Amino acid sequence: MTMTETIPLGDYLFQRIRQLGITKILGCPGDFNMTLLDHIDNVEGLEWLGNCNELNAAYAADGYGRVRGLPGVFVTTYGVGELSAINGVAGAFAEHVPVLHIVGTPARPEMEYRMWMHHTLPGGSDSEDPDHYVFQRMSAPVRCASAALDDVNTLAEEVDRVLFTIWRKSLPGYIFVPLDIVNAPVPKSKLDEPLVLKIVNSDPSLEDALVLEILDALYKSKTPTILVDILARRHRARKLVMELIDKTQIPSFSTDLAKGFVDEDHPAFVGQYNGRLSRPGVAEAVESSDVVLNIGPVISDSNTGGFTRFIDNKHLIMLHPSYVEVFGVRYDGLHFLPILEKLVARIDSSKLPLFKKADSFNIGPAPVVESPADISTSYFYKYMGDKFLKPNDIIFAESGTPQYGINDARFPKNVNFTTQLYYSSIGFALPAALGACVAQREIENEGGEKARVVLFEGDGSSMMTIQELTTFTRNGYNPIIFLINNSGYTIERAIHGPEAKYNDIPPDWRWTELFKTFGADESKYFSARVATRKELEDLLSSKEFAQAEHKARFVEVVMDRLDIPWRLSGQVATIAEKVKVWFTDYSTKRGEAPRSA
Amino acid sequence: MTMTETIPLGDYLFQRIRQLGITKILGCPGDFNMTLLDHIDNVEGLEWLGNCNELNAAYAADGYGRVRGLPGVFVTTYGVGELSAINGVAGAFAEHVPVLHIVGTPARPEMEYRMWMHHTLPGGSDSEDPDHYVFQRMSAPVRCASAALDDVNTLAEEVDRVLFTIWRKSLPGYIFVPLDIVNAPVPKSKLDEPLVLKIVNSDPSLEDALVLEILDALYKSKTPTILVDILARRHRARKLVMELIDKTQIPSFSTDLAKGFVDEDHPAFVGQYNGRLSRPGVAEAVESSDVVLNIGPVISDSNTGGFTRFIDNKHLIMLHPSYVEVFGVRYDGLHFLPILEKLVARIDSSKLPLFKKADSFNIGPAPVVESPADISTSYFYKYMGDKFLKPNDIIFAESGTPQYGINDARFPKNVNFTTQLYYSSIGFALPAALGACVAQREIENEGGEKARVVLFEGDGSSMMTIQELTTFTRNGYNPIIFLINNSGYTIERAIHGPEAKYNDIPPDWRWTELFKTFGADESKYFSARVATRKELEDLLSSKEFAQAEHKARFVEVVMDRLDIPWRLSGQVATIAEKVKVWFTDYSTKRGEAPRSA
Repeated sequence: MTMTETIPLGDYLFQRIRQLGITKILGCPGDFNMTLLDHIDNVEGLEWLGNCNELNAAYAADGYGRVRGLPGVFVTTYGVGELSAINGVAGAFAEHVPVLHIVGTPARPEMEYRMWMHHTLPGGSDSEDPDHYVFQRMSAPVRCASAALDDVNTLAEEVDRVLFTIWRKSLPGYIFVPLDIVNAPVPKSKLDEPLVLKIVNSDPSLEDALVLEILDALYKSKTPTILVDILARRHRARKLVMELIDKTQIPSFSTDLAKGFVDEDHPAFVGQYNGRLSRPGVAEAVESSDVVLNIGPVISDSNTGGFTRFIDNKHLIMLHPSYVEVFGVRYDGLHFLPILEKLVARIDSSKLPLFKKADSFNIGPAPVVESPADISTSYFYKYMGDKFLKPNDIIFAESGTPQYGINDARFPKNVNFTTQLYYSSIGFALPAALGACVAQREIENEGGEKARVVLFEGDGSSMMTIQELTTFTRNGYNPIIFLINNSGYTIERAIHGPEAKYNDIPPDWRWTELFKTFGADESKYFSARVATRKELEDLLSSKEFAQAEHKARFVEVVMDRLDIPWRLSGQVATIAEKVKVWFTDYSTKRGEAPRSA
Repeated sequence: MTMTETIPLGDYLFQRIRQLGITKILGCPGDFNMTLLDHIDNVEGLEWLGNCNELNAAYAADGYGRVRGLPGVFVTTYGVGELSAINGVAGAFAEHVPVLHIVGTPARPEMEYRMWMHHTLPGGSDSEDPDHYVFQRMSAPVRCASAALDDVNTLAEEVDRVLFTIWRKSLPGYIFVPLDIVNAPVPKSKLDEPLVLKIVNSDPSLEDALVLEILDALYKSKTPTILVDILARRHRARKLVMELIDKTQIPSFSTDLAKGFVDEDHPAFVGQYNGRLSRPGVAEAVESSDVVLNIGPVISDSNTGGFTRFIDNKHLIMLHPSYVEVFGVRYDGLHFLPILEKLVARIDSSKLPLFKKADSFNIGPAPVVESPADISTSYFYKYMGDKFLKPNDIIFAESGTPQYGINDARFPKNVNFTTQLYYSSIGFALPAALGACVAQREIENEGGEKARVVLFEGDGSSMMTIQELTTFTRNGYNPIIFLINNSGYTIERAIHGPEAKYNDIPPDWRWTELFKTFGADESKYFSARVATRKELEDLLSSKEFAQAEHKARFVEVVMDRLDIPWRLSGQVATIAEKVKVWFTDYSTKRGEAPRSA
């Protein structure tokens, strides 16, 4: 043992996290993590921010990660808390969000000797001594890296490895901290070695060759386009992408997942591409392009108009965090960021072809869906885009009608928009918006631009995680929440069983009283209910609403239970048709008797 | 193909469930399960009962299983819903509760062709096509059986196999129903073959030999005792065990998990055994016994007074669902039920020794813990036992101070008590009590005895799952809920950080307004707040309270934030001492530098 000065592992872990710029640790206490939580207070500028339950904590960490570009960090206790959170972590994994889940576990001897501690599972079928590592195995598919801190000689390295991998891959990671490791000594000097957060591919010459090839293709193209998707934001490439678009003015598109990524008033912005479920003219524009530079793609059902994205490989360049694919040739293991950097630096706009300008594409209007209620989805989101949303807004649209309806809003510039359109776990958006508030306050405290957090939430989905409302006002956050009261799971009614009992939800909730019931006084929140356009417009333009800007503002918006956004009904119809074909083919192939699906 | 009349798999599945006596399907709808849910309505007497989220649904199914002895059945959608529920299923697995989790998945072709459906996870590290079976693997450690319905030729057999295994093992199981299997034809005649719910061991002669050995030991003993634990209830052996006790009058004990199993006013009941954390005289009584017949043991930390259960193997007989152990010799794979049946049938009480009667054991009183608040834990639970609880009550005590404090209540007879003392997932008890209400209504509808569902719940833990309150009143259930308002996670304060910020919870909740805010009108609920003994006693003896018996009754009980039940402080101290020793031993063995834990 050298005489090196040491600090406890707990301090090291939280210092490292603080060094990244993070100021809040989310989560729930539990008997296997509290001595670890004590170390938060040893770190200047770092604070505990407790959640109501662990799933909500995971969602909040995810929301934080989406806004901050740094890992949302949350702590749970072993087993019970850890598993409660797993679906939230899975969503972050699916959608490439950096999240660090720290789990406080029993001490190493308790685990190794398979002791019957509470929170364990009996081993074997039900009667063997508990296998304490079972929970770690269960979460393996939803993380990019993990460290079960066990060896006192490598603690700092293990922490750093996980943090770096999370950052590089923009995916969740786990650190498991046994009770008896919390105070294990770590050389203090390790804190002076900064975490090198730089993404590097192993073969720069391959990067150069690919950049050349891409440039060559663009220069030779006649109708180039840029199609931006959400992994570009997740991997912190927004500035770079916008630089590319600014520099080249190549006609540019966002996907539904990445709505607003390309400023919708940008001269190069053409429209939002989601296969056949785009506004008239958009799909044709993208699909007739001879070079589509697709940055950060997520090719999932809902982000491709129900698998109706038809871009031929011979016109397609895909820049992904795990591969680069150029006209059908895929290079695995390459991160797109260094390549994009070189591309932006090297592109010579004067060599680009003369292409059709964005504003000369003929993009038709979105269809308007009628509703028996005065406030229709079509009206509401269009109004939001035209009159309410502001530049820099951080917008969350919950899975369900909000995530489809909101596409009718024209976004102001520099909006950071989240909808969990791929993983689609309802209940996500409310706690995620909490995480966004945490992130945004950090950004402002660092001198970043002011921004509002605006949440569009459904009634059924909000019930999943509703208690987390209390955490907004408890901590003085001031989101704007539009709660769409449409009497049930309207997205499910759109898919199947419009009148089915299972698509109803508990009725008669007094939505506007939730904050009060959850302990907020009137200095902390403002709430109102609107059922007509006039009420909505009057409210949003009222002095009262404006003066409440430092409070959490909650607006219950009454809509019809069967008011279904056109993109949602389109998605359902498109998929249903395809599924019917798949069913029959598959069933026939297996020699099954014919039947209706 | 024969001309056999067929029914759709969906009908078959729910008919089989209904045949067991089950009338409600819990859960949440989702796009991959709704066509399956349609089949519920095809079954007479079966109904959907929706929950607010999937974890709550799992907890409710668990609570149902504990009261009904039949599987609590709940349905979720693939991925998002499935994982949200997993911690609830894990708790049922840990504590041997029959639960059936039905998951509606994408169609077989979507899964097999690894399509990028929503709710999936990217395969590999992040970029391969999704592996749709990943969720099924994640839940493997928390179930005893599963069927991924895939082969149209074995659907009925697979359903039956899972149902039977759940019943036999009293553990959770999964049935995965792909969208395109919902309507697959199943021979209708299969419904006429009843599910044979009979537990049989493969070697009856081994059973006979063991029964002989046990009888012989009992006959030769001087100080026999019976120690009943919770797996006896889980495996539906209460009647049998009570028959044994009635017949023999052998001095009998319950563990903390099984509190109330042996009627506490039964002439053979001595006390509640939890190692050193029992009332004075109890541990000595059990541990000096020369034959301890331990039925349905769970030997976990909190159920053994922090590993201070000292019963020598040479005096110990353990009857477990997965093994029988007689004086240190273990027979794996034997279910205790058939053995217990033979034992009860064959035991000849006249051959038993003359043993000390239960009432001649010298059992001291529980310590009384003082509190600055008028209503102390010691007072409250004793009062509950003496004045409020009634025979047949179904009682839930949430993890935290309720599960420790309630041991000071003397239970009336025939109480069905649940505390999740082994798995200890806070938030469990509230939705579990909902499941109990569902089960109890079924029992009453079948002509069973009337019983109240009484829940003792903490403030911090209730916040985890609070939205499920709405499901009680939505369905007209009438539990009695005591909400202990002690300003935070008091159990955590007892363990570590009594003043730590992380043990605080959002303050100032208006507890008594929750039902109203969640949509209940006054015909459905009654609520009150009490902060003094007089208020509590007046309330509980008031006409108003009595007349509200058909409503959900909610009583907020204000207690001190540091009012810690003696069993809890004892548990913490006992474990802390042991852990210190384990730490040091383990750390020394690994050659680590000495340090404080």
